[in-house]
Amino acid sequence: MAQTEQAKSMRKARSEASFNTYELTCLLWGGPRIVKERRAAFERVEKALGTYDTSKLPRCYAENNREALFEQGLQMGKVCLDDMLQYKHEHFVWITPRYNLVNASPFGHKAILFEPGMEHNGTEEQKAKWLPLARAGKILGTYAQTELGHGSFVRGIETTATFDEDTDEFIVHTPTISSTKFWPAGLGFSTTHGTVMARLIVGNEDHGPHIFLVQLRSVEDGKPMPGIRMGDVGLKLGYNEADNGFASFDRVRIPRSQMLMAHSQLTREGRFTKNPLRAKLSYSVMLLVRAKMPGVFSVQLAQALTIATRYSVVRQQGLGPADAFSTESSVLYYKHQHFRLLSMIAKSYAMFFASRACDMQYNQLREMQNKNDNSLLPSVHALTAGLKAYVTSEAVDGAEDARKLCGGHGYMAISGLPDIIGALAGGATFEGENYVLWQQVGRHLLKQLDRLQDGEPVEAQVQYLAELNLNAACAAQGEEFLGFDVQLSIYRDRAHRLIFKAHKAIRAASKPPTEAWNEHMMLLISASRAHIEYFILKSFNDTICSLPYGPTAPALRMMLCWMRDLFALSTIINPRSVDVLSFVETADTHQPYLSSAQLDTMRSLVNKRLDGLLPHIIALTDAWDFSDASLCSAIGMYDGNVYENIMRWVEQLPINQNAWKNGGVQQGWKDWVDPILKREIGVAAKL
Amino acid sequence: MAQTEQAKSMRKARSEASFNTYELTCLLWGGPRIVKERRAAFERVEKALGTYDTSKLPRCYAENNREALFEQGLQMGKVCLDDMLQYKHEHFVWITPRYNLVNASPFGHKAILFEPGMEHNGTEEQKAKWLPLARAGKILGTYAQTELGHGSFVRGIETTATFDEDTDEFIVHTPTISSTKFWPAGLGFSTTHGTVMARLIVGNEDHGPHIFLVQLRSVEDGKPMPGIRMGDVGLKLGYNEADNGFASFDRVRIPRSQMLMAHSQLTREGRFTKNPLRAKLSYSVMLLVRAKMPGVFSVQLAQALTIATRYSVVRQQGLGPADAFSTESSVLYYKHQHFRLLSMIAKSYAMFFASRACDMQYNQLREMQNKNDNSLLPSVHALTAGLKAYVTSEAVDGAEDARKLCGGHGYMAISGLPDIIGALAGGATFEGENYVLWQQVGRHLLKQLDRLQDGEPVEAQVQYLAELNLNAACAAQGEEFLGFDVQLSIYRDRAHRLIFKAHKAIRAASKPPTEAWNEHMMLLISASRAHIEYFILKSFNDTICSLPYGPTAPALRMMLCWMRDLFALSTIINPRSVDVLSFVETADTHQPYLSSAQLDTMRSLVNKRLDGLLPHIIALTDAWDFSDASLCSAIGMYDGNVYENIMRWVEQLPINQNAWKNGGVQQGWKDWVDPILKREIGVAAKL
Repeated sequence: MAQTEQAKSMRKARSEASFNTYELTCLLWGGPRIVKERRAAFERVEKALGTYDTSKLPRCYAENNREALFEQGLQMGKVCLDDMLQYKHEHFVWITPRYNLVNASPFGHKAILFEPGMEHNGTEEQKAKWLPLARAGKILGTYAQTELGHGSFVRGIETTATFDEDTDEFIVHTPTISSTKFWPAGLGFSTTHGTVMARLIVGNEDHGPHIFLVQLRSVEDGKPMPGIRMGDVGLKLGYNEADNGFASFDRVRIPRSQMLMAHSQLTREGRFTKNPLRAKLSYSVMLLVRAKMPGVFSVQLAQALTIATRYSVVRQQGLGPADAFSTESSVLYYKHQHFRLLSMIAKSYAMFFASRACDMQYNQLREMQNKNDNSLLPSVHALTAGLKAYVTSEAVDGAEDARKLCGGHGYMAISGLPDIIGALAGGATFEGENYVLWQQVGRHLLKQLDRLQDGEPVEAQVQYLAELNLNAACAAQGEEFLGFDVQLSIYRDRAHRLIFKAHKAIRAASKPPTEAWNEHMMLLISASRAHIEYFILKSFNDTICSLPYGPTAPALRMMLCWMRDLFALSTIINPRSVDVLSFVETADTHQPYLSSAQLDTMRSLVNKRLDGLLPHIIALTDAWDFSDASLCSAIGMYDGNVYENIMRWVEQLPINQNAWKNGGVQQGWKDWVDPILKREIGVAAKL
Repeated sequence: MAQTEQAKSMRKARSEASFNTYELTCLLWGGPRIVKERRAAFERVEKALGTYDTSKLPRCYAENNREALFEQGLQMGKVCLDDMLQYKHEHFVWITPRYNLVNASPFGHKAILFEPGMEHNGTEEQKAKWLPLARAGKILGTYAQTELGHGSFVRGIETTATFDEDTDEFIVHTPTISSTKFWPAGLGFSTTHGTVMARLIVGNEDHGPHIFLVQLRSVEDGKPMPGIRMGDVGLKLGYNEADNGFASFDRVRIPRSQMLMAHSQLTREGRFTKNPLRAKLSYSVMLLVRAKMPGVFSVQLAQALTIATRYSVVRQQGLGPADAFSTESSVLYYKHQHFRLLSMIAKSYAMFFASRACDMQYNQLREMQNKNDNSLLPSVHALTAGLKAYVTSEAVDGAEDARKLCGGHGYMAISGLPDIIGALAGGATFEGENYVLWQQVGRHLLKQLDRLQDGEPVEAQVQYLAELNLNAACAAQGEEFLGFDVQLSIYRDRAHRLIFKAHKAIRAASKPPTEAWNEHMMLLISASRAHIEYFILKSFNDTICSLPYGPTAPALRMMLCWMRDLFALSTIINPRSVDVLSFVETADTHQPYLSSAQLDTMRSLVNKRLDGLLPHIIALTDAWDFSDASLCSAIGMYDGNVYENIMRWVEQLPINQNAWKNGGVQQGWKDWVDPILKREIGVAAKL
């Protein structure tokens, strides 16, 4: 193909970076060896899936009904499992070849919920029996907790497992429509076993929810086990490669040995015992997924931004009616375009670096738990909950804005953006609904402040609650706002003010605690969010401080410092930022924490950083090292040949191919259009 | 069916309203006669489409690939055209039976762009020839302006219409890939004629874009006319019932009489003349659609809120980990749930009332234009542009938040929410990209301020720019914030400050105007937005003031006043509101316009209004009078039988029906699952 104007623009934009893109890639993914391995793994899998040759219309755009998307998910799941087996790596345990969370595959629960759940909740004997089978793929598992009428509130589930002492079995049963197990990936058609949450009933006693291993289907022929009725929930906003399903149980019998008994036990005689301390461990499975989500979601946001950035570079448009420009120019040049893109790029990096800090804390928790020390659980629980809620919310909003930045073409499925947005949209709900999580963070923060006020030690992350005076106004001026200490102090002081304010409102209320909690819920959520935003900014700087030194490092370091500045300041002055009044509100006085003049200074400094970063915008998105196949976007390919790529793909759409075979006419013409044109009576509808 | 708990909850919630729901319905739709007509029209069309019996899974969820959705759109389009013809009404000119904008149908451009475009741009002779054919459905038209490489910037389009004096014809041609006509609804397969925007070339002269009537297909057999290649752009985020398409023209000849010549003329000899004054009229077609969009989009947001409200009433959930509640209770009771729902319900009403005020101004413009008076054009242009940008942006964000309020079930297609969100998401782009529109509003406001400073009269809508002192802080306290004058002054003062600030920054800059414009673009957009938000609040109160008096009116009036209070105050203190710093920032001093204490007062008052409105929440959504079929939602039906409705629909999904016929096994099991279970080597992938 001849070199198009668009491809030339892309090459020019790519050449303008003054730092080493590959060095940033290595920082993001963990070093040259991993980068190389990842590239090879993606290439193999993309070739196996037939997506590597991006001149071909990807199958997901050609065959797109419920059945076809699910079948593509089965293929993708198997190809990934095979590749990890053959080449001994784990690159697809958490993400798919399109960088979705792995439960975009029907087998997604296998490695992230079913096997870890067994590890955390099974006895040594149970683990020895089931884990090798699961890991070898001799059984395929899912985790069935939520029910049609019961989501976040585990204590409310209705499915029962009633002990039958006569036969030494449990009878698993869904007594109502609302108790139908609902949502687990793979439940529809493709898993053989489930770890099923059900209320343990012994005699007249209800011991509350416990986990039971239930065989769902024959491993021989895939037929459902007797008494189990399963199916698919239909199309969703995203994750349509997975058969998120439902299951009702009609008095299904399983042996007593299939209750997971690491934390609670039921003897042959029906005697129930429980170890409350160990029960906390069952949380850790949920924590694992939550700890991983911020990273995956940051990367998916980066995908959307990569597509939008590439398209913005090559797309030309005059702003005719505003008379600002007399000829067409790259839309990237317009302030609102690069303000939004670069602010979000900075945020995607900020959240990704924070996700790694969170990951490290989770790993530390696990190490200590292996030594029976659960002391880190509350703080890691709060951190993962808050970061999950923050990142999933910002990522979907950011990807949707990235789509809007692509104009009409971002509205087409083949832009790749609708699928990314649909996947990100699920994050607000699954693995803990965000507003529920924010309250969990808030509860933790209030407890920490209780401790502080009682003179007890608090965790390092909230140490700032002890350090400051309230009510101080920010004293910085001019370029002082580019100093990290000033930036961090603004975020820290805000979190401090809000946590104290929420604590006072809820703890000092004359109302019953429940009512006070509900009345001040929005304030509590703000406090939780401010704490997490402080953590994210801090993590960004920690990452910069940990950069290795080397000949090309100063250029990269400067770029990351600029991105940190942009994140810190644009989050305050961006009109679409969440909860910004709290940056200026102080507790008691009429003096704002930040004056209008200071905010205007920040706006100028943001413009300065935007000007500095704009030449590097392609490099900053290239650095994520996304393959064209993984972006799956006609407008976001590396070469910038947007218009050729769009037309090449739309021409391959089956609806067009079929019409052209019939001389350009769809069957629908005969059925619906022709009768309109040929009818005898005129249409009355006019304006 | 036995009365479920959910249905009981719904009946109880419905019974709590103290105002007359039907009276509000009549206020919304324009009186009892129209309400009755609408109901009858929807019922007839729903019966014809097979959606009226909501126990049946709607076809759009059963057959959902590209081809099937388009075919459903053809059917829907024909049924609506037939009903309007037979029963002589216009209820489906702007909306479809699912309350989408009518260009969700392949024939959508017919009545809203093709025919009005002909009316505005055709000569009397052209109108006499073509309009009767179009109105009688003897030809089906679309409007083809945008190209693959050219969107908002009309002057940049590349398609040419070259005059051939020898034959007295134009040669319509798309010389490049980027000039391919792209996006018009119906272009793909289902329209016969297009009003095509192309550059008029006469000899060596390029007279810029003009509109030409081009026959696209044979009205006999639907085959494309020679030299025209057309097809579909594939699946989109929404509007998949329409065949938004592309077309390339290879030297297609049309007679000279098919250039629409009301504003410019080309003689037989190739002499070109133009009436610059009349040329402004060509804007009015675009204005018509923009003037209608805020209404349609407010109603679609109301649909999403109706679904979310109904589901919230019947959904129970404890907040286990927060320990706030010990038993499960309706999620509606939680502050974040009803804060978000009621704030958005208030906003949907506010935007709808503003859209009607906008509609009235548009009609006034048209009346004056019919008398050759274009003096209202700039102000109506700015108002429609700004309201379109505001409403489309808030509506999609609101509907997405409504979806999040439904937890996992809002993620399913059968909730109806993904389709509503997908449709709303298009609004930011089509009929004028929102950030382009905001700049047009800004340009108008700056010009008005220029006039004011030059001592010339300004339009009524910006008269407030002359009335106020800058820098005043708000003096209100306590319940004074429930007074409309105080509320309006807060919005007015903000708009005032921002418009003056933007004017100063851009007009007084030492930089070239283009650069100053770009540098301060975000500020200009804020100013435009603030002006529109002021207009919306004002319109809300105007509607209340215009309420007729009657025996039940006081209850309704009070409800609407509470909603106005909620809109006015929650927009300021909602953490997710856009651009709220500008409510507190003043131009020069350290004194904020609103102090923290005043903001906390507003928060208390918002809680007070939430408490007052909560018992009426079902009535406030019922009032829109949406039929169950138009909501097309398993979780949003009138009866509240959420769980029964979900299961009834998912059981009818073809993917489940087919599997159950095969003993519960999908074909995919044999192809992909069985080989995993039966392979000889173990899987290495473990955590």
